[in-house]
Amino acid sequence: MSTLDANWFTEIHQDAGSAFSLRIRRKLADERTPYQHIEVFETTDFGNFMVIDGCTMVTARENFVYHEMMTHPVLYTHAAPRDVLIIGGGDCGTLREVLRHPEVASAVQVEIDERVTRLAEQYFPELCELNHDPRATLIFGDGIQWVKDAPASSLDVVIIDSTDPVGPAEGLFSRPFYADCLRVLRAGGMIVQQSESPLLHLKILRDMHSAMRDAGYADVRTLHFPQMIYPSGWWSATVARKGEKIEGLREVDVAARPFETKYYNADIHRAAFVLPTFLREALA
Amino acid sequence: MSTLDANWFTEIHQDAGSAFSLRIRRKLADERTPYQHIEVFETTDFGNFMVIDGCTMVTARENFVYHEMMTHPVLYTHAAPRDVLIIGGGDCGTLREVLRHPEVASAVQVEIDERVTRLAEQYFPELCELNHDPRATLIFGDGIQWVKDAPASSLDVVIIDSTDPVGPAEGLFSRPFYADCLRVLRAGGMIVQQSESPLLHLKILRDMHSAMRDAGYADVRTLHFPQMIYPSGWWSATVARKGEKIEGLREVDVAARPFETKYYNADIHRAAFVLPTFLREALA
Repeated sequence: MSTLDANWFTEIHQDAGSAFSLRIRRKLADERTPYQHIEVFETTDFGNFMVIDGCTMVTARENFVYHEMMTHPVLYTHAAPRDVLIIGGGDCGTLREVLRHPEVASAVQVEIDERVTRLAEQYFPELCELNHDPRATLIFGDGIQWVKDAPASSLDVVIIDSTDPVGPAEGLFSRPFYADCLRVLRAGGMIVQQSESPLLHLKILRDMHSAMRDAGYADVRTLHFPQMIYPSGWWSATVARKGEKIEGLREVDVAARPFETKYYNADIHRAAFVLPTFLREALA
Repeated sequence: MSTLDANWFTEIHQDAGSAFSLRIRRKLADERTPYQHIEVFETTDFGNFMVIDGCTMVTARENFVYHEMMTHPVLYTHAAPRDVLIIGGGDCGTLREVLRHPEVASAVQVEIDERVTRLAEQYFPELCELNHDPRATLIFGDGIQWVKDAPASSLDVVIIDSTDPVGPAEGLFSRPFYADCLRVLRAGGMIVQQSESPLLHLKILRDMHSAMRDAGYADVRTLHFPQMIYPSGWWSATVARKGEKIEGLREVDVAARPFETKYYNADIHRAAFVLPTFLREALA
């Protein structure tokens, strides 16, 4: 049996009985903020690697799947996504993908912990390359309160790019928060939230569907994608829409997109929403 | 940083700089055969777990994805899969899925190491429940030689369910072997082979495509699916067909299938063949 020495970072998924490790060269940063413990490592094979409270967050090599799938499916379904809010998303990779859409006029990011963004600027500059876009506003504060205070019908898309539903992010996985988001969305507006592993966290997914439907969204759908560094290597995002079905992929715009994607394309868009039998049954 | 004690089994992926671990309760079997080192563990959360030469092979909890995706996409594309050959597949999960198809008249499994199957019968009885089906023939021997000796145009589907392309399985990832398979296939016949991780093993995938095309197959396509216990948690299978395009999903038969699936369905069939942009470009 192999053993891992001090050259490895390991995240143990206690509830799942599994663990995932990356081989590291050195630690680049280690900070305890008022919110959490942030570490950044240089790995041997995945570039720089951020860890929050012992949980793998992002690596330079494979974050493209997550960031593309948290943004483009929703932004290419909405007919005209002009005003976008990102809650969490401190590494700024989601913000970058949002700002690649020329139809976006304003992207506000509300991250609770400024240090996540400052460390991302230092160690993941490629994710932060659009932070100074004139359409971007970076706010460091409480996303739940920000949504409560926002005017009704003022946003087209809300992206909830948070950590797991424990600690600071817990309130983001709740019916009252989803109801607040519904209020600030315009007609046809959409929310998308990372929704954990289909294999390991089926109850969270089921509860999110219920809470979003109860909050009054007209349609709720889950999409899924590989995500190597998260528990089980398989991840999901759940989309809900105000007053309309989650339909209407702007296929012509996807084909003519003025930027490159490494994972996303129009066929992947449709395929990602196709559910395996057990998941279809669980979310029916 | 977390550390894993003796209650964990870890597979280190040296080339990838990553590792995957499962928490174990106890070791159930440990055998060195003429071919390899086989271990079986009881895990805390994934049921029984087989390891070969230190590599994770199969767990009771999540093998359904792999076994369904190695069989049903091909068997439901072929118009009339009557005679099926499985090379490797010693845990018998692939054989079970093949035999669920009433149109299959004969399934021959050629596994080099009888001990894999005997341990599977003991520790994964659910995978072996159709081993005594009158349509099944279990042969313990060299799959490459078996194909060489088989009559031309005698099979409809060859499933290559092997370990990684090192050690005993190396010859199964080669143009001469693919050419031998082509000879034993009838017109429209198909091979499907596990083809590693799209994220970590792009060169293997590319080389397989080239080798299969060079061997004379009319069409080669890759499908992909989550596979938690294999490197990166994302896996693929590559399909090649004799003389025809890989088309013709028997959708009516899928809908009327006389057995349950947990992952596979007709929509998943189509979705699994949709490639992310980087993979589409790499295999173009």
